Amino acid sequence: MPKTQPVNVVVVGSVGIDTIETPFARRESVLGGSASYACAAASFFARPGMVGVVGNDFPKAHRDLYRKFHIDTDGLQTASGKTFCWSGVYEQDMNNRRSLSTALNVLADFSPQLPESYRRAPFLFLANISPSLQLDVLSQMKKPRFVLLDTMDLWINNTKPELLRVMQRVTMMALNESEARHLTGERGLVRAARHLLKAGPRYVVVKKGEHGSILFTKKGFFLMPAFPLENVVDPTGAGDTFAGGFLGALARSGDLSDGGIRKAMLYGSIVASFGVEDFSLNRLARLTRAQIEKRAAVLRRMMKV
Amino acid sequence: MPKTQPVNVVVVGSVGIDTIETPFARRESVLGGSASYACAAASFFARPGMVGVVGNDFPKAHRDLYRKFHIDTDGLQTASGKTFCWSGVYEQDMNNRRSLSTALNVLADFSPQLPESYRRAPFLFLANISPSLQLDVLSQMKKPRFVLLDTMDLWINNTKPELLRVMQRVTMMALNESEARHLTGERGLVRAARHLLKAGPRYVVVKKGEHGSILFTKKGFFLMPAFPLENVVDPTGAGDTFAGGFLGALARSGDLSDGGIRKAMLYGSIVASFGVEDFSLNRLARLTRAQIEKRAAVLRRMMKV
Repeated sequence: MPKTQPVNVVVVGSVGIDTIETPFARRESVLGGSASYACAAASFFARPGMVGVVGNDFPKAHRDLYRKFHIDTDGLQTASGKTFCWSGVYEQDMNNRRSLSTALNVLADFSPQLPESYRRAPFLFLANISPSLQLDVLSQMKKPRFVLLDTMDLWINNTKPELLRVMQRVTMMALNESEARHLTGERGLVRAARHLLKAGPRYVVVKKGEHGSILFTKKGFFLMPAFPLENVVDPTGAGDTFAGGFLGALARSGDLSDGGIRKAMLYGSIVASFGVEDFSLNRLARLTRAQIEKRAAVLRRMMKV
Repeated sequence: MPKTQPVNVVVVGSVGIDTIETPFARRESVLGGSASYACAAASFFARPGMVGVVGNDFPKAHRDLYRKFHIDTDGLQTASGKTFCWSGVYEQDMNNRRSLSTALNVLADFSPQLPESYRRAPFLFLANISPSLQLDVLSQMKKPRFVLLDTMDLWINNTKPELLRVMQRVTMMALNESEARHLTGERGLVRAARHLLKAGPRYVVVKKGEHGSILFTKKGFFLMPAFPLENVVDPTGAGDTFAGGFLGALARSGDLSDGGIRKAMLYGSIVASFGVEDFSLNRLARLTRAQIEKRAAVLRRMMKV
């Protein structure tokens, strides 16, 4: 995207320094965080603006990478202290991972301030961050057309009332299978999704990792498979990459019909399939629109019956 | 199917008496076995012939049910002794189950004898039974057009050389994710499938339960999602129901092109989605072609992007 385009996808989320161990490799202190993944993914289709905070230890190389993606960082604050750090380890079955450590650092006192230029953006992604911060960002926006909400077990357990309040104000909610069950108390996915649709969002997306995702609406379903990959190197950030790619594609097309939502999900799924082929943002940094379109066409053929 | 149609789908597999426990209910001594599920599913589209063995304790009600499905049972032997019995229990996550007991009984000395009328059938399903029995049946057939092979961990562990010999002579092999990994030693599904395609079958179908299945060919993939269900009552036999429905639909259309294979997989998936809505063959016994077509149309719409 040309740098001059105004921000049309605002993303609030974490910016972090990750240490990741998979059964095959280990990477120390690499760029991570939901906002990093989502903004990088959205940048292939739209102009993302990042809302978040880093410490004064945040490496210049990471800022340079954001610039390379044409991510607007006017909403990224620098606070004195250390940047948020997370480390995790993936099991042999990489669908399962354990967090080893989480140091909130500057994220603990984060108070989002949206630049004036972000407030009228039509698309907003409330990535995984506390519901009260999500509400704060939402209240600074002027009538966004489409708000996507992500969450995690931590907020379901500790701040459910706030989470339910955010849900009342979003267009779409994305969550994984266990979160959907956990939040609703329903064992079956279909019932869980129906339950969630009553709580506010017009769309619910249940993310199933390598098995793809399911879109639930009041009228029906859409089954979005994941691209079958030969080499999954690091699944970290796949959900955020999906969300960012989805919202970016939606911002580009402006088509909020059911068909438009499906097409945007296809793009989100494709960008995520590239993202997990390397650690951190490494694969996305060398990804091209032509590669995205090519794989999207292949996936469409794989879904045709 | 009219009873007068000659057998066009031959199924060899187990006929058993199952005791099944799910987190919600328990059923004792109900009709089961891979051949029962596969023949019932195929009967919606074709004329199945069953190759198997039961003991002289096999209830008349079960034979009556086979007749109701218009399953040809000329290949079903009755031996003196007890019918094969299996019992299993499903965990809270019904993707996981444990076998509690398996009594081979008359299956231990089974020697399949194909009626003359079966030997020129164009479609053959080698359901889950020992590879040496599968080979025996295969050798009694006169050039079937399409042979589908199923297997399980037991045979991969204990009779791998025989299994590899069967694989050289089949058109398609269906197996689940862990079996694919186990048989090939490859962790990734895509590599495992590529490995299997080199061992004989032109098609490999990896079954992923509620996540659907993936068709692998030398040229590419087809991603077949499962119909999202509100109530899964008993997943037993879902893979056999899928296989039987698939082969029946293929026999009906006679279309062995890639498009024909995909359509048949859609029908297999749909019949299986009904099958798990009740124990044993109960749901299939009250299923109609109109219900199948209706759900197939809905699933197609759910896959469209």
